[in-house]
Amino acid sequence: MKNISILGSTGSIGTQALEVVRANPTRYRVNALTAQNNATLLIEQALEFKPELVVIACEDHYQTVKNALPNTQVLCGEEALLAAVQLPQTQLVLTAIMGSVGLKPTIAAIEAKKDIGLANKETLVVAGELVMQLAKQNGVNIIPVDSEHSAIFQCLVGEANNAIEKIMLTASGGPFRGKDSAFLAHVTKAQALKHPNWVMGAKITIDSASLMNKGLEAIEAKWLFGLASDQIEVIVHPQSIIHSMVQFTDGSIKAQMGLPDMKLPIHYALAYPHRMLSNFERFNFLNYPELTFAQADTQTFRNLDLAYQAMEKGGNMPCIINAANEVVVDAFLKDHIGFLQMSDVIEACMESIGFIAHPTLNNYLETDRQTRIFAGELVTKQNLTNLKTKTY
Amino acid sequence: MKNISILGSTGSIGTQALEVVRANPTRYRVNALTAQNNATLLIEQALEFKPELVVIACEDHYQTVKNALPNTQVLCGEEALLAAVQLPQTQLVLTAIMGSVGLKPTIAAIEAKKDIGLANKETLVVAGELVMQLAKQNGVNIIPVDSEHSAIFQCLVGEANNAIEKIMLTASGGPFRGKDSAFLAHVTKAQALKHPNWVMGAKITIDSASLMNKGLEAIEAKWLFGLASDQIEVIVHPQSIIHSMVQFTDGSIKAQMGLPDMKLPIHYALAYPHRMLSNFERFNFLNYPELTFAQADTQTFRNLDLAYQAMEKGGNMPCIINAANEVVVDAFLKDHIGFLQMSDVIEACMESIGFIAHPTLNNYLETDRQTRIFAGELVTKQNLTNLKTKTY
Repeated sequence: MKNISILGSTGSIGTQALEVVRANPTRYRVNALTAQNNATLLIEQALEFKPELVVIACEDHYQTVKNALPNTQVLCGEEALLAAVQLPQTQLVLTAIMGSVGLKPTIAAIEAKKDIGLANKETLVVAGELVMQLAKQNGVNIIPVDSEHSAIFQCLVGEANNAIEKIMLTASGGPFRGKDSAFLAHVTKAQALKHPNWVMGAKITIDSASLMNKGLEAIEAKWLFGLASDQIEVIVHPQSIIHSMVQFTDGSIKAQMGLPDMKLPIHYALAYPHRMLSNFERFNFLNYPELTFAQADTQTFRNLDLAYQAMEKGGNMPCIINAANEVVVDAFLKDHIGFLQMSDVIEACMESIGFIAHPTLNNYLETDRQTRIFAGELVTKQNLTNLKTKTY
Repeated sequence: MKNISILGSTGSIGTQALEVVRANPTRYRVNALTAQNNATLLIEQALEFKPELVVIACEDHYQTVKNALPNTQVLCGEEALLAAVQLPQTQLVLTAIMGSVGLKPTIAAIEAKKDIGLANKETLVVAGELVMQLAKQNGVNIIPVDSEHSAIFQCLVGEANNAIEKIMLTASGGPFRGKDSAFLAHVTKAQALKHPNWVMGAKITIDSASLMNKGLEAIEAKWLFGLASDQIEVIVHPQSIIHSMVQFTDGSIKAQMGLPDMKLPIHYALAYPHRMLSNFERFNFLNYPELTFAQADTQTFRNLDLAYQAMEKGGNMPCIINAANEVVVDAFLKDHIGFLQMSDVIEACMESIGFIAHPTLNNYLETDRQTRIFAGELVTKQNLTNLKTKTY
């Protein structure tokens, strides 16, 4: 029986994790569930899985949740996430919340010596060096849930002493693969939200369309697997069957493959170091007679290039692009800016926010705050200009 | 420094193994070299690598080798192979000899507690149950050198406690992929020897063209990885980039990939459990933008079907097909029988040689002997008929 706390249980990863738990009731026990806003679903989940602690981050919903769960401890506010990860019985914390708000509870969980099922890539993008160091000091496993990082993690099992030459992150290319900038200038959020292979939350789906997702994944991989930037390659693979690859120094490549279904990496992260029987649909080569591969178009999809620049620059630069990106994706989803304007705002933030080569946790939090303000101002200006000229 | 004995040093695998040793002189020391017939190359190798013992199996060449290597112990005859594998300093025996003649020295090596770099698939095809049991009893690693089995072995590193759902052996399909029986009836040995991807010895190249190689590999895999027949799938993959795959019970698939170059699995087997830096050409996806997959045509390539029948039947049946196959491939290479007649002779042997459900080592050796005689007689008859009617 493994005891787990799930941060972000009402999101895409959270709900799928609970499906895995539901299918394996003798294996997993849920100790804590947390959600940002979705009180209705959180209550439903709490009634089913009976955690000791429930946290609703948004205080407006506290009373609703409290009233619905009279026999459960209910807390609210972001600080309460720390309580959820520190429960003594919890062994694994699944960090399935979105954005850099995941950083603090992840650090708290590591300090409480809980293994981390990492589904919040911003934690490593923003503060990878610090977080991985803490994990090492506390003897904590960071088990990635992103399908690409799970693939690499699986390929590295048993290879601890063998040096990595490079990793290859596969990218579906998103819904706009093969399109040019002229096309991208006019795409709508509805088009961007139609991912060809993966069913995911809105933020990550937009990031997939802009290839920022792959850029953030590269930075995440850099820290997770202790790599240099030039050891991380992105390969466009539209079928999303090969989830990623590792090439060792002998030239041998290992790949992890399967249907594009997030439940598999979630299932793996919960069960690690074991693999458990699943009834997920199996991959069949006869349904995929061709797997194809191509180079990523970083001229058109500038976000990927910006992310690599940030990764190479290091310091608080990945924190800057991450914060800027969260602001612009939100703005794009609200129709305030166009698809290509997202890159413009991110680039402006990279040029304007003060660079710090060796940031502390407080530096990261302050960089995040400043960038959001600055990006927000740029978005507002863009939005006003757009309303006047309708350029997107 | 790892001490190795190489059985079959003048063959395709043997010479490539010596290339790996040559490139890593501080890592490997060669204790024994053996060859069947090629005295010239054997002498050359012995002068370069300075082994303690040299064995030439064919006694006709003994004096030549002896005279050329006055300061080295030189033995001849097949029994001398046993001395080569039992040298006290030897840690790893690379069994790169062809055919069921590899069985006895492999068993002797295991009993002498030497790890085995297995490049003689007949050992497991003929007597897999017995050999794997011995290896377990003696705490000996059997590290496969066949690219497919090396791929699976690599995918299983670190997964010892996780159950395999199935393995997928990839097959290039050989030079006659997509052809029908009418075409196969008239193919020449020159055509059959032109493998599209792999540079290998003549016997295995013919086996690749007839898909018998994949059938033998399935049987080898059954014993090596402790699988049931229905856990072993063959998938045609003409580019030979994915060398094979493992699907675990959670549905996750791991694959090992690279350019089709036997030096990589040889390098891996010698270095195991480590991986060592190599300067082999690296795989590049941009040179292989499409990897394709298809079902094997077992109606046309009957050998694969016959091998699966033998695997399912068990007992001495795989020994029968292996011995029959060695005879017919030799006959095909001598233009005594046609391509399709190889399957006819093998099938007749399967029907005629006495079945033994639980054979001893002596049963295997006797089955092998009887089958060769019977198959030889059938080949002679076919050859005479062919000479009269020129049906191939």
